[in-house]
Amino acid sequence: MNFTIHQTDTNSSARAGTLTTDHGQIETPIFMPVGTVASVKGVHQKELENDINADIILGNTYHLYLRPKTEILEGAGGLHKFMNWHRPILTDSGGYQVYSLSDNRKIKEEGVKFKSHIDGSTHFFSPEFSMEIQRKIGADIIMAFDECTPYPCEYNYARNSMHMTHRWLERCIQYLKDHPENYGFKQHFFPIVQGSTYKDLRKQSAEYIAGAGAVGNAIGGLSVGEPAEEMYEMTEVVTAILPKDKPRYLMGVGTPINILENIALGIDMFDCVMPTRNARNGMLFTAHGTINIKNKKWEDDFSPLDEMGITTVDTIYSKAYVRHLFAANEYLGKQIASIHNLGFYLWLVREARKHILAGDFAEWKQMMVRQMDKRL
Amino acid sequence: MNFTIHQTDTNSSARAGTLTTDHGQIETPIFMPVGTVASVKGVHQKELENDINADIILGNTYHLYLRPKTEILEGAGGLHKFMNWHRPILTDSGGYQVYSLSDNRKIKEEGVKFKSHIDGSTHFFSPEFSMEIQRKIGADIIMAFDECTPYPCEYNYARNSMHMTHRWLERCIQYLKDHPENYGFKQHFFPIVQGSTYKDLRKQSAEYIAGAGAVGNAIGGLSVGEPAEEMYEMTEVVTAILPKDKPRYLMGVGTPINILENIALGIDMFDCVMPTRNARNGMLFTAHGTINIKNKKWEDDFSPLDEMGITTVDTIYSKAYVRHLFAANEYLGKQIASIHNLGFYLWLVREARKHILAGDFAEWKQMMVRQMDKRL
Ligand SMILES: [Zn+2]
Ligand SMILES: [Zn+2]
Repeated sequence: MNFTIHQTDTNSSARAGTLTTDHGQIETPIFMPVGTVASVKGVHQKELENDINADIILGNTYHLYLRPKTEILEGAGGLHKFMNWHRPILTDSGGYQVYSLSDNRKIKEEGVKFKSHIDGSTHFFSPEFSMEIQRKIGADIIMAFDECTPYPCEYNYARNSMHMTHRWLERCIQYLKDHPENYGFKQHFFPIVQGSTYKDLRKQSAEYIAGAGAVGNAIGGLSVGEPAEEMYEMTEVVTAILPKDKPRYLMGVGTPINILENIALGIDMFDCVMPTRNARNGMLFTAHGTINIKNKKWEDDFSPLDEMGITTVDTIYSKAYVRHLFAANEYLGKQIASIHNLGFYLWLVREARKHILAGDFAEWKQMMVRQMDKRL
Repeated sequence: MNFTIHQTDTNSSARAGTLTTDHGQIETPIFMPVGTVASVKGVHQKELENDINADIILGNTYHLYLRPKTEILEGAGGLHKFMNWHRPILTDSGGYQVYSLSDNRKIKEEGVKFKSHIDGSTHFFSPEFSMEIQRKIGADIIMAFDECTPYPCEYNYARNSMHMTHRWLERCIQYLKDHPENYGFKQHFFPIVQGSTYKDLRKQSAEYIAGAGAVGNAIGGLSVGEPAEEMYEMTEVVTAILPKDKPRYLMGVGTPINILENIALGIDMFDCVMPTRNARNGMLFTAHGTINIKNKKWEDDFSPLDEMGITTVDTIYSKAYVRHLFAANEYLGKQIASIHNLGFYLWLVREARKHILAGDFAEWKQMMVRQMDKRL
């Protein structure tokens, strides 16, 4: 995987780069829409390409393993072909959902036994099995199997868990060495830094992960309930250690403001369900603050959904119309809001990139953070 | 309203025509997708225009009156502007939903008192009030306020109801004469033939309606549970009497086969929730029969959703993928199926038109009816 950094900001650690995969280039910093079970909820693939212009999307290994199941994805020739998405894909390891969604999960050195949240059936994920599934899914970027600790987390638990994550990393690497790609393109493997909200653990883990010499590195276990300030502190500790010339992925983050703050700390890649989940609840992100489109105040506001017109839905539909669709429980409202929010997130990271390249990222970021921190 | 008939089939009563409204032309026979509350469920307006290529859509007065409410539509400058749809719209009178959806409706000579199915609030629709609402909604074609009798229906009830529908028609006409259009374009009014499944009543009603001299005429009270053969018989009785040079609209019909059979009997316009409602339940219509896409048999069928490729979704998504979306309860499945079914209905009426113009409609219809009457 080729990663070129075109510019590093002088007043922050923000970088503008280009990541190259066999399915195309990714301009960083980038936000990756979450396509849980081979679908970004309510959004057509062509809308992701044309309206939202996503360079890369994310798939969830846990969900895909349960439905449609790994064999079906293999039969299709991998996830790209199954869902007809031609650009890059990243899959997580399945770990996060095992801990957060399934019942009765038992974490041991060997791996995690858990019950499906769908039908209660018993399954077992190990580092090796997660790699096997991810080989079969066939994403361009695949993730290490780790334990994502909850917040708050006891120091001893966090330390032991971190070391297990490190041991699991070695097993992942060994499996991938022994089992090459299933399809005709390269898969790039990212290990994950853990360590909860403890600076010394985060430092230790970042050093260990940096030592693995991977083509890209991720930071996990953040945005799990801790205050934003703690998240930023941890990011800062870790990005100071992770290699500068490799892409850095902060998993599961976050609000538009979280994203700008973490870009300033040297993060290149983000994913989060927030833009789509909040969209389905009627919450729209804009450059001037958030809108609860369900509010009665929009009932007779016939101005465009978003004057900025980032995506086509922003100007062809009015606030009053989308407000009506939510009031009448029409799914088209959720579809429109999802396209809007994802389009806005992609616009935001692309603007950030422009300002990094132009050399005025820090000022722009400050202005945007102030401007977006409002309810309209 | 200009209605030109280009060709009448020699072996049936099928006609190919063009209907002209201030929002554009409608090529007949035509199917009108149902946009209940200013949205065809799960389908973007641009998909209706580009993928499905609908010449005209339908709005439901009852639903629009309750949500977003008539004043909001007036504030927007009418339904076209509210939902950003530039082609023709037809609205029904609200009567059908008052009878089928609301609680405690009381039908009297003056009008119908009913309770909203949403919040139980009490409302009153009269012929005059239905016209007033339809003026404010601003569709290109508006419908008379009638009583749609259920099936089966006692002869005496059907006869009395039919005469009341006739008296209501006069009140609709008077209201429209006294109250011109609200917006800068013409609204065309269609009266409705009733008479349940009684030939003598249907004849009487068709004669009365023909006598009103409207620019187009509709047939109501069919496709309410009666056998298809009875529906066809009633259509035949009525189309024999309604003026040949005016468009004929059969309300609420039906399956693809129903549509072809009624085109053969001289019907020019159709609407039905079936393509979208069945789509949401995983039922796909194709030229070779119906598909229940939820069936396990499609699980690893990676062939295109519909080889015919009428709409873009037919070839970019596979049966296995759409089957997975339904199994995983992903709304994108319903979106894809809705576009497919509507695209298929529009394809079907356009093919019918081509074959009427080519002079081989009857043979083609027979072949299609046989071919579509299968489960795949
Ligand atoms: Zn360790
Ligand atoms: Zn009469």
